[in-house]
Amino acid sequence: MIEITAVGGYSEVGRNMTAVKIGNDVVVLDIGLHMENYVHVSNDEDIVKISAEDLLASDSVPRIETISDWADKVRLIIPSHAHLDHVGGIPYLAGRYNADILATPFTSAVLKNILTEEKLRIRNHIRTLNVNAVYQQSDEVKVEFINITHSTPQSIIVALHTKQGTILYANDFKFDLYPTIGKKPDFEKLRQLGQKGVLALIMDSTYAGLRQKMPSESVARQMLKDVLLGTDNRNKAIIVTTFASHIARLKSIVEFGSKLNRKIVFLGRSLAKYASAAEKTGIASFSKDVEIVKYSSKIKRRLKKIMKEGKEKYVLVVTGHQGEPASTLYKMANNQFDFKFTAGDHIIFSCRVIPTSTNIANRENIEKLLNRQGARLFRDIHTSGHSAREDHREMIELVKPKHIIPAHGPLEMTSKMAELAYEMGYKRENVHLMKNGQRISLE
Amino acid sequence: MIEITAVGGYSEVGRNMTAVKIGNDVVVLDIGLHMENYVHVSNDEDIVKISAEDLLASDSVPRIETISDWADKVRLIIPSHAHLDHVGGIPYLAGRYNADILATPFTSAVLKNILTEEKLRIRNHIRTLNVNAVYQQSDEVKVEFINITHSTPQSIIVALHTKQGTILYANDFKFDLYPTIGKKPDFEKLRQLGQKGVLALIMDSTYAGLRQKMPSESVARQMLKDVLLGTDNRNKAIIVTTFASHIARLKSIVEFGSKLNRKIVFLGRSLAKYASAAEKTGIASFSKDVEIVKYSSKIKRRLKKIMKEGKEKYVLVVTGHQGEPASTLYKMANNQFDFKFTAGDHIIFSCRVIPTSTNIANRENIEKLLNRQGARLFRDIHTSGHSAREDHREMIELVKPKHIIPAHGPLEMTSKMAELAYEMGYKRENVHLMKNGQRISLE
Amino acid sequence: MIEITAVGGYSEVGRNMTAVKIGNDVVVLDIGLHMENYVHVSNDEDIVKISAEDLLASDSVPRIETISDWADKVRLIIPSHAHLDHVGGIPYLAGRYNADILATPFTSAVLKNILTEEKLRIRNHIRTLNVNAVYQQSDEVKVEFINITHSTPQSIIVALHTKQGTILYANDFKFDLYPTIGKKPDFEKLRQLGQKGVLALIMDSTYAGLRQKMPSESVARQMLKDVLLGTDNRNKAIIVTTFASHIARLKSIVEFGSKLNRKIVFLGRSLAKYASAAEKTGIASFSKDVEIVKYSSKIKRRLKKIMKEGKEKYVLVVTGHQGEPASTLYKMANNQFDFKFTAGDHIIFSCRVIPTSTNIANRENIEKLLNRQGARLFRDIHTSGHSAREDHREMIELVKPKHIIPAHGPLEMTSKMAELAYEMGYKRENVHLMKNGQRISLE
Amino acid sequence: MIEITAVGGYSEVGRNMTAVKIGNDVVVLDIGLHMENYVHVSNDEDIVKISAEDLLASDSVPRIETISDWADKVRLIIPSHAHLDHVGGIPYLAGRYNADILATPFTSAVLKNILTEEKLRIRNHIRTLNVNAVYQQSDEVKVEFINITHSTPQSIIVALHTKQGTILYANDFKFDLYPTIGKKPDFEKLRQLGQKGVLALIMDSTYAGLRQKMPSESVARQMLKDVLLGTDNRNKAIIVTTFASHIARLKSIVEFGSKLNRKIVFLGRSLAKYASAAEKTGIASFSKDVEIVKYSSKIKRRLKKIMKEGKEKYVLVVTGHQGEPASTLYKMANNQFDFKFTAGDHIIFSCRVIPTSTNIANRENIEKLLNRQGARLFRDIHTSGHSAREDHREMIELVKPKHIIPAHGPLEMTSKMAELAYEMGYKRENVHLMKNGQRISLE
Repeated sequence: MIEITAVGGYSEVGRNMTAVKIGNDVVVLDIGLHMENYVHVSNDEDIVKISAEDLLASDSVPRIETISDWADKVRLIIPSHAHLDHVGGIPYLAGRYNADILATPFTSAVLKNILTEEKLRIRNHIRTLNVNAVYQQSDEVKVEFINITHSTPQSIIVALHTKQGTILYANDFKFDLYPTIGKKPDFEKLRQLGQKGVLALIMDSTYAGLRQKMPSESVARQMLKDVLLGTDNRNKAIIVTTFASHIARLKSIVEFGSKLNRKIVFLGRSLAKYASAAEKTGIASFSKDVEIVKYSSKIKRRLKKIMKEGKEKYVLVVTGHQGEPASTLYKMANNQFDFKFTAGDHIIFSCRVIPTSTNIANRENIEKLLNRQGARLFRDIHTSGHSAREDHREMIELVKPKHIIPAHGPLEMTSKMAELAYEMGYKRENVHLMKNGQRISLE
Repeated sequence: MIEITAVGGYSEVGRNMTAVKIGNDVVVLDIGLHMENYVHVSNDEDIVKISAEDLLASDSVPRIETISDWADKVRLIIPSHAHLDHVGGIPYLAGRYNADILATPFTSAVLKNILTEEKLRIRNHIRTLNVNAVYQQSDEVKVEFINITHSTPQSIIVALHTKQGTILYANDFKFDLYPTIGKKPDFEKLRQLGQKGVLALIMDSTYAGLRQKMPSESVARQMLKDVLLGTDNRNKAIIVTTFASHIARLKSIVEFGSKLNRKIVFLGRSLAKYASAAEKTGIASFSKDVEIVKYSSKIKRRLKKIMKEGKEKYVLVVTGHQGEPASTLYKMANNQFDFKFTAGDHIIFSCRVIPTSTNIANRENIEKLLNRQGARLFRDIHTSGHSAREDHREMIELVKPKHIIPAHGPLEMTSKMAELAYEMGYKRENVHLMKNGQRISLE
Repeated sequence: MIEITAVGGYSEVGRNMTAVKIGNDVVVLDIGLHMENYVHVSNDEDIVKISAEDLLASDSVPRIETISDWADKVRLIIPSHAHLDHVGGIPYLAGRYNADILATPFTSAVLKNILTEEKLRIRNHIRTLNVNAVYQQSDEVKVEFINITHSTPQSIIVALHTKQGTILYANDFKFDLYPTIGKKPDFEKLRQLGQKGVLALIMDSTYAGLRQKMPSESVARQMLKDVLLGTDNRNKAIIVTTFASHIARLKSIVEFGSKLNRKIVFLGRSLAKYASAAEKTGIASFSKDVEIVKYSSKIKRRLKKIMKEGKEKYVLVVTGHQGEPASTLYKMANNQFDFKFTAGDHIIFSCRVIPTSTNIANRENIEKLLNRQGARLFRDIHTSGHSAREDHREMIELVKPKHIIPAHGPLEMTSKMAELAYEMGYKRENVHLMKNGQRISLE
Repeated sequence: MIEITAVGGYSEVGRNMTAVKIGNDVVVLDIGLHMENYVHVSNDEDIVKISAEDLLASDSVPRIETISDWADKVRLIIPSHAHLDHVGGIPYLAGRYNADILATPFTSAVLKNILTEEKLRIRNHIRTLNVNAVYQQSDEVKVEFINITHSTPQSIIVALHTKQGTILYANDFKFDLYPTIGKKPDFEKLRQLGQKGVLALIMDSTYAGLRQKMPSESVARQMLKDVLLGTDNRNKAIIVTTFASHIARLKSIVEFGSKLNRKIVFLGRSLAKYASAAEKTGIASFSKDVEIVKYSSKIKRRLKKIMKEGKEKYVLVVTGHQGEPASTLYKMANNQFDFKFTAGDHIIFSCRVIPTSTNIANRENIEKLLNRQGARLFRDIHTSGHSAREDHREMIELVKPKHIIPAHGPLEMTSKMAELAYEMGYKRENVHLMKNGQRISLE
């Protein structure tokens, strides 16, 4: 019998964690942060010193007490990709389990960078497994990493092959046939698994209600080209902000920035963290084209120099796409750095506002500050890394799972995935709408 | 003294019409339909027999009585482009003026097609003026057509050169540096006019509140490629619906459709109308790649044949992107044709829902019908043809008008343009928020 | 074993129907219409001739094929109240079952009025059971009608007492402690049932996400007083539109209308239908204060006379609160009657827009017509008849059901009720999120 | 010639200030705070020490530099009522003018309380003028205070009687015919002024787009009764939060609270401030029924005692209706006080969320904290103090102003009032859409 506990991310978007019990082995998939709650307990981008207890009390990490009866059986912790809502709880909670961590090279590198950065230590061994490779955990469980596209490199679908069948964890993913870095999704592998028989599919439901195929990253790249090369930005600053983890996007920014004959500088701690991980794992080599400045004190000095040399000679890539008060962009806008905006400076938000009320308020606030100083805003230069309903449909058709477990959101989101499953002929007993803390048995 | 009357399109989106009086000459810019009101008085796609009086009573055309004192001075009627909300009232109202019509070859061709189609006649002479050409109307007025990008070919900014200065009518336009057909906007010409002195700029304010540059048509093209070539559509019908007037989009559809080795058929009256105008004016030559079927009776027969031959051998391009009950797609969805949907058929909406309550209701209804038959919907494969706030800013900087007259919407939209103008340093007396029926004098 | 099938109203708002199988007896609770789909197949307020097949094909009634295996076991059909989305399918579908209909006097009277009106016949016997009375159906099932408040009189919670426990059907209800007609909810009875043990509660989830207690009808009454007696309506027409079934609201309108010393006339078929049912069952005696005009032809004549006598002498209560094109108000607005609006006439919408896209479009259209004629609109003079989250919580605490089955909406609505149940400590196996056509077994 | 400068509140909701120049006299109407910006520069409810410069730099008060050329002509500063967005800037900016302050007794008392509280001093003399009284400022200007209803006591319409005609400042107001304290609006006076001739009406446009009459305070009172007396709150805490300035609402809360036989305590600085002003001016005598606790330290102690005695014996009225982090409710929710919530405690929000992104985020956050502790939320027990479109229409009909100046919001709001004026036959030259810093001359 296989049991699955929805530990986190089933009652909210964020702090993802799912535990799968196969015989006497428990595999934990993701231990993520709830970014909004986490930001309420942390404050400055430079200094973070938070305990696991703080995080648990503020619902910033999954409520692991719901698997306390399984605690001594956890053998493996697998972060599916390098986003903080999937990997960010590991530094705080992994140590509670006597279990290795298994991740792709990029995800491992990001995790190690976080640990170094936050001066945290964990006793768990971090094992690296390549995309499309296999790891034999025990007689009961074999783990396979299946290549998939998402908004950060080396994102994978985790396959847990068991005697009772395969469990697929596809949280998060996108079907991008025109990715700008990395390979296309491994459709052939998914089809083969479907033919052999998939017991359960745990799947990202963020946009299960959106009647679309999620547009390719190549669309965002074309938007970026349009806005960087197709507007009148002579003699103006160009400041771009995007997800630090989105290496593909950063590469496009660097490429178009170079065409403008401007010097490119990354300013911000999280940009440095992800860029370095990309560098270490051979995914990108920013260091030859880009100067990377990590800490606030150095950023302050660098911006002073930029102002002296002429800000129109630069493309500045900064943290702060959601208007976070601790970010580089916020501090620039709020005059905490010696940067002066001039009417007509370009601010490119290569992201969308992640629609939480805190982000909306922060973005409104930063935009107000920027507008007051005459900046021009270019918003929504972006396509999402999440699949939409028509991608979900293709996934279900490919892998033909017996059971579907919608994940990555509260019931109002996951119920959209359930409706898709019912529409495709699934029966009530094979579709499992879960909430944090709930557990089901299969077979 | 120059006087300007906001005849239509200043209290709503639609039925655009602006009258400019220069000495004793009045030039009318656009006479458009209000599509939603128009649809309430018309019914079937095949049969239309409506009088000017019906249209006036239902607010489907501009209330021309507000310039009745100018009626005998109207010398010229200039539709700025071929969209019905700019050109569609001409067949009904132009005859009330002893004035020529001046339009680009494509717009002229569309206008003539409408007249033939609707079995209407007008006494006005239709003169054709090429993009970037000049027409001397009188001592007082010289007309120039300035090349601009929009979502239908040969869209122009109309320049009225007068002794008091130039009046620019930029309603509608987009600054697209990567257009997929036609030339880029003529920035150099706009800059020159700005240097000579522009008296007034009448400008499309639809998205004046949107803090963006409107993405290029090349972005929509990439989205279309993604959805046509990047989804699993083997053995399924592919049905695409888009704006009939959007020749660039249609060309992209045809191109990607050809790569799928499917036969491409256009089904619907308005598609035929615009495709033929594009053909006549050398903009596109659909007839070699595409079969075009115009009338409902023939569409019915053709679809029957398609069902027999195998719908998976076709890409069908149809009218009905807003769910209009008289459209081809609606009749297919509602089983008025002998077309049978199969689970998994692809319906691609290469448009967005124009957000009127009628369209929203129609689209919801057609989508419900399509879903019930198992079709897969791909929505919002689109970028708009309208400029957004950052494009407006560039336009104002380029042409440096003395006066700004925001157009193409009610006060809640046009006031966003006024705010931009104030933000750029304009004074209250140079920004003219107008409502239908209001008149201002300049100098 | 008790089995429950969610026949209708679990995938949409409308066409409610739930079937409960107790041993060999099936009790059907409600057979309602889906109003929006129904309106698509019907057209004129005066003439309706639709078959059950039309209604089934258009999803206007529940898909009863999902209980075709139970068809010969249906013993009783119980409409919980007189709204069409609960009772309106009975004239078309009840005849398929060899079963009596059991309803309160008012609901029975409405049902009979519909049958007469539509010239329909059903073979089923209509039995009348008073509120708070008990009916012994068989050894297996005893039916009890529990008094509850809602927006139409004699609404009940149906209790099915079985050997396995009691099943409560509370769909729709409101906890109104200050009702303007009828009694308060029978809290004591509910508490007693809770103490004895309720097996399952099937409950209206429309507003399960709304963190409120739904305001009392006495609040709407105060709003109505404010707008009828507290605005300057001298010499102006006063036209009020509300739900025809909302007898309490109608009584308030009549009462305040009388204070204005105006003659009150009800104009419209559905108003007549419900008013007559209220009269027959002694709930209201409109006929002494109000003139009721039913059919279009007579309404036309009456309005002509009203115009002659002076419309400022009347309060006209009309159908058309959702802007329905077949309603009296629409025909008045659209000049199909000989009624002339004058600037400043009062139109009071004592309702809210039921938020379907069709209603929104219809309301926008009728409001546009009314505005064009200078009428003053007073919208949203209303409180809902549905319970909200804090009412649901009280209900659950009162009756302490073992199982909860959220009803009256798609999963995105019912999942809000599930969340409430989980919040209150319910376990996953006792909360049943269902979709149309699904069946569960209890015990 | 009369000149009017829109100093603040014409580009945003908040920081209201209008300056009227009559000959050599300038009268300033309101000097308010922009609450959201103000909160960004202040922090704790107990400690505030902000300079005028801070407030100006952060756009928390009107940009008075736009009337710097009039500075030495300002004779009178008149706050129209006691809300902080109208009166809150006076402590910081009034001193810049050699001018008296003229206000009703209640508004004066509030102003004095603020000065004491914030330990601020101003050199201006505060004159008190009763509602419906007249003050002769000079030969040029006579000031009259006209009684009107709003959501705080002794709100007035300011009439400036000049040789060129009367200027009415009706910002904010409501037409409430069933007020729960104070008198009805003085319609007769308004009608008389209209007959004599009103030159200009400056009017609150907040809800000019809302097609309604704003419901009376008596409606909110009924809602409050319903929720306080009509829910099961035995053995539970009852905590109510509302606008501190809303004395009528507070009186209703106290009245219904008393019926519950609970002790009533007001907890929070701003509640104390307004309650004391009401007491001093004889509007309410809370002190006999209510215990008022002002400062955080005392609140902490009082809550501890309440917990000991049994919180179910109290109705606690607290600050924090918008979730403000410095408020009593927030500190209770966030466990900064020794108050413990128990599942089922009642929290009544007798307000609506003022829809700024900061408020929305704060409310979501406080509600999340409260939900986590099991509290029951009762939201939106409220009617607004602002007039809606149908009230505006009555106002315009009553006073028949020559000029209309929509106030209290950005162009997208004020343009709705302009549309109403145009609909009522006003010409473009008599309707003045203004933005902060703009100035117009009348006649």
